Amino acid sequence: MNLQIIYNIAEICARKNVRQWMLSPGSRVAPLTIALSRHPQIKSFTMSDERSAAFTAFGMAQQLSKLYHQQKQKDFLLVGLACTSGSAAYNYAPAIAEAFYQEIPLIVFTADRPPEWIDQLDGQTIRQRNIYGLHVKKSYELPVDYDHPDAVWHVERIVNEAINLSKSPPFGPVHINAPFREPFYPQPGEIPHFDSPLRIIETLSGETNLAKPLWNSLLDDWEESPKILIVPGQHDFHPDLIKYLGLLYQDYKMPIVSDTLSNTQSIAGAVRYHDIFLMDKSPDFLESLRPDLLITFGKSLISKALKLFLRKFPAREHWHIQVAGIPPDTFQSLTKVIPMYPEAFFRQLYSDLDFINMLDQDEEGEDNPYHELWQIYNAKAERYVHSFDFPQEKLTDFLAVYELLQALPPRNILHLANSMPVRYVNYVAFPPWAEIEICVNRGTSGIDGCTSTALGAALMTPDQTVVLLSGDLAFFYDRNALWNNFIPSNLRIVLLNNHSGNIFRIIEGPSQQPELEQYFETIQTLEAENTARDFNLSYKKVETLAALQDQLKTFFEPSDQAVILEIITDKIENASVWKLFKDQFLEKL
Amino acid sequence: MNLQIIYNIAEICARKNVRQWMLSPGSRVAPLTIALSRHPQIKSFTMSDERSAAFTAFGMAQQLSKLYHQQKQKDFLLVGLACTSGSAAYNYAPAIAEAFYQEIPLIVFTADRPPEWIDQLDGQTIRQRNIYGLHVKKSYELPVDYDHPDAVWHVERIVNEAINLSKSPPFGPVHINAPFREPFYPQPGEIPHFDSPLRIIETLSGETNLAKPLWNSLLDDWEESPKILIVPGQHDFHPDLIKYLGLLYQDYKMPIVSDTLSNTQSIAGAVRYHDIFLMDKSPDFLESLRPDLLITFGKSLISKALKLFLRKFPAREHWHIQVAGIPPDTFQSLTKVIPMYPEAFFRQLYSDLDFINMLDQDEEGEDNPYHELWQIYNAKAERYVHSFDFPQEKLTDFLAVYELLQALPPRNILHLANSMPVRYVNYVAFPPWAEIEICVNRGTSGIDGCTSTALGAALMTPDQTVVLLSGDLAFFYDRNALWNNFIPSNLRIVLLNNHSGNIFRIIEGPSQQPELEQYFETIQTLEAENTARDFNLSYKKVETLAALQDQLKTFFEPSDQAVILEIITDKIENASVWKLFKDQFLEKL
Repeated sequence: MNLQIIYNIAEICARKNVRQWMLSPGSRVAPLTIALSRHPQIKSFTMSDERSAAFTAFGMAQQLSKLYHQQKQKDFLLVGLACTSGSAAYNYAPAIAEAFYQEIPLIVFTADRPPEWIDQLDGQTIRQRNIYGLHVKKSYELPVDYDHPDAVWHVERIVNEAINLSKSPPFGPVHINAPFREPFYPQPGEIPHFDSPLRIIETLSGETNLAKPLWNSLLDDWEESPKILIVPGQHDFHPDLIKYLGLLYQDYKMPIVSDTLSNTQSIAGAVRYHDIFLMDKSPDFLESLRPDLLITFGKSLISKALKLFLRKFPAREHWHIQVAGIPPDTFQSLTKVIPMYPEAFFRQLYSDLDFINMLDQDEEGEDNPYHELWQIYNAKAERYVHSFDFPQEKLTDFLAVYELLQALPPRNILHLANSMPVRYVNYVAFPPWAEIEICVNRGTSGIDGCTSTALGAALMTPDQTVVLLSGDLAFFYDRNALWNNFIPSNLRIVLLNNHSGNIFRIIEGPSQQPELEQYFETIQTLEAENTARDFNLSYKKVETLAALQDQLKTFFEPSDQAVILEIITDKIENASVWKLFKDQFLEKL
Repeated sequence: MNLQIIYNIAEICARKNVRQWMLSPGSRVAPLTIALSRHPQIKSFTMSDERSAAFTAFGMAQQLSKLYHQQKQKDFLLVGLACTSGSAAYNYAPAIAEAFYQEIPLIVFTADRPPEWIDQLDGQTIRQRNIYGLHVKKSYELPVDYDHPDAVWHVERIVNEAINLSKSPPFGPVHINAPFREPFYPQPGEIPHFDSPLRIIETLSGETNLAKPLWNSLLDDWEESPKILIVPGQHDFHPDLIKYLGLLYQDYKMPIVSDTLSNTQSIAGAVRYHDIFLMDKSPDFLESLRPDLLITFGKSLISKALKLFLRKFPAREHWHIQVAGIPPDTFQSLTKVIPMYPEAFFRQLYSDLDFINMLDQDEEGEDNPYHELWQIYNAKAERYVHSFDFPQEKLTDFLAVYELLQALPPRNILHLANSMPVRYVNYVAFPPWAEIEICVNRGTSGIDGCTSTALGAALMTPDQTVVLLSGDLAFFYDRNALWNNFIPSNLRIVLLNNHSGNIFRIIEGPSQQPELEQYFETIQTLEAENTARDFNLSYKKVETLAALQDQLKTFFEPSDQAVILEIITDKIENASVWKLFKDQFLEKL
């Protein structure tokens, strides 16, 4: 094959900022491997398990694309993936689905045999066209012969278009299936050339604004709604967004109900303990919290109580702010979709309302009983959680999470594995001043790639500590995350090991079934010490509160190796402390 | 939801012999988990990593469906899989692709949210319809509401149809996406009923026979072809097939070129060392081996030399025997597709030729120079491999495989991981009297599920020993195969650990590139001792030939635990012994 065409692909990727790559080994993918690893502006990692490789790449991309959202850096770096043909490609699929639902750009190359050899009983050959189905923004296939000049144009256009598409809102993964003919390797000593004249196609990004009358009707609605509720879903940590929401809150005191994964908990006044007080299901109580106007942005919520409340007591009017894509109707109450970035929406809202209020001094300083209601319950729940008398004879997951959150050094990244860690954290919350960035795979909410995603985040943020809080099932499921030669020393893994999928004992349905232990909890005996030994990580194990507190004193200090802190707890005690926590709160009502 | 409908699904499955199940835990799948695990005729296993779970189920199904092929047992047991919604389903995909290409029946249930909740930001919700693309025979979706009687009919018909389809030739995986509404759990104490009157739809299997004139034209062709070559691809061990091929061989002496994975090496006279003597690429030599009539059946070949030879020196006429499905044109020479089971074809061929020869005594006892040529080369290669002077100062992979094959106790199952183990075995071959059954994932030829597949085989064949021969990359890739509570004691793992993907040093292209170690071999440091400790397996490690020979004396003896025998070798020496083996053979020509 003409390897220069492949070198050109690497060059287009480099010039379009796809400069961080995760490769997995294989023969068929060799032309890409060689082109990418030899390109001077491209940094390549390699992992053998494609499932972990893809989640790691996703974790990298999540951190890099965050910079775009935070600072509108048009030239943020993108992440590429490349694997060989066959089932390797399918192992990427879970991470690609996660990227799709979290709207994270990923450029996914899968090497393939030429189309005439599909289904002819050659090795590592499956039907790779459109293999990721509806979980990529688009699936492309490169031509296999480059003799006609139009084929060369086709290759270069596809690569340009795919990259542009991945970073057009909504961001997302794109797939390029790349059939390659033998020979795959350059002659020994052959030097690749990355200096061909190449055309780069750039898609300029625009800004959507609403026409004045439309915008004014929104302002009218806002002004006429005594009960406005803002509920951010999963979202990057975003300083501008926090700033304008904070200013708006100062003036209008609309409650902002902040799940941890919304990364808005540092807004002064944010309601952070809703997952506790919404355990109270009495209809009068919930009715009193019902909004007139619900404003949402971002993606999923972790609080099931909040979701159920908003579905059962829907707002009259629900605006969802989303710059592009098909909007979700999460609360069965959606009425308006506003095609703007949330930070732009709130900035303009704040500025226009400010102007109106200057004209109309009457509005100022007015009390807002709806807001006060939320604040009262929030304060009550906050007091409850922080004065909860954890039975301390035995260390439990809930207590361990509580301790961890108090000990976390500020301005770092906390990656929460599915499924219990993210729920515990949402109950406890953490000090808003901590400015901890929360990441969690709530696109698909799988346990399959949590460690890899945290690894990817740690690779891209060497100046921060990335703390992964994981349960044992998620941790051992994705143990191959650690099967590489570049585990960064800024990674800290806190492993809650109760030897089971404890959530099934904590939620109501399965805990009462005879199949609980065998088919839901799926009791497992692994502990992480051998894993730490295998991967040359520092390892600490605690079984008491005192030992945990002691370890947390030094756990976050810089070190030469990543560290695993394994916290051994008992699944039955975990469930009973959780029940106690819930029951006592409901009793006190 | 109406759980009785789900109990009925379990009952239909049981009555249609889908009685071995691999479940993975989750909330959404709970109705199926409960119905299946409570059914008295169904045996359920559970594994948390869905990728390994699916490969294990595949390995189980491979053993069970073999019984059908061997004995036409219509009532062979089928294997079902069930997982929860979200990315869990995607983790099944690599094994499903393997099952699709190996034509192994699998009934795959994926639980799902009701369709109205897709893309509404609820957890573990992706676009599951048709998620396995072109790698299942069909993808079904159950209705979500059962109020209308037609919906109940629809559920029951889908389950019947899907099972029938999976075991209609060509066998293969079928997918049933199952959206479930809450609540998922029966009331405590609620007893499931599996005794509803249910209709079972059975698809009767027919036999294809060729019309007499058509069949006679084949007989004429056979009679008129002085150079007939039979090349079986990957196939179950099949006594009848071996019998009729053996009888045919006795009378007609057409060479049968048997890759190990064809499980036909026990036919007396089978050519088993073709992978060695076809290293000789001289055109005159290869031309002398060119067949007039090539007859193939089964699936892929492991010998690349054999494939290249048959492509470069194609037969005038190439018959492929395949009962159903779209035929491959592996050697670019296909002329006739014969829609019969291979054993039926060869039985009839033998019987009809026998009759013709009775009439025409002249044909008998005639010499066949074409056959003799193949035999001469085969004998020469056999002598070469068995007299090869392995440099024994250091144990290498090739030598270890040689030793293992001589030591294997007969009538057991040898599962060969991709990618080097299966190649080494094809060079060495093993004593034909050993009647070792070879399994290997050459459907997609991935390294992603080899250990799990061997585990599944071991679970279904408790009276045999299942030996997995694996390289280190395949073994650690699929380490979660061992993450379960039922590792059978008849499993023996022989792990060739050269700390790399050694094939890339052995084949020509990548071995000469500067990226070899980092991007192709992907050097890794793991050894299996900690893994054995984690999973409570017996563990032996050897680094010398003497130690290996010593261990092999007792390795296959029955024991309470599965055993890992780790053989530490050096990647550079492995490659140089291989080169020596090849070079010396070519020099001697």
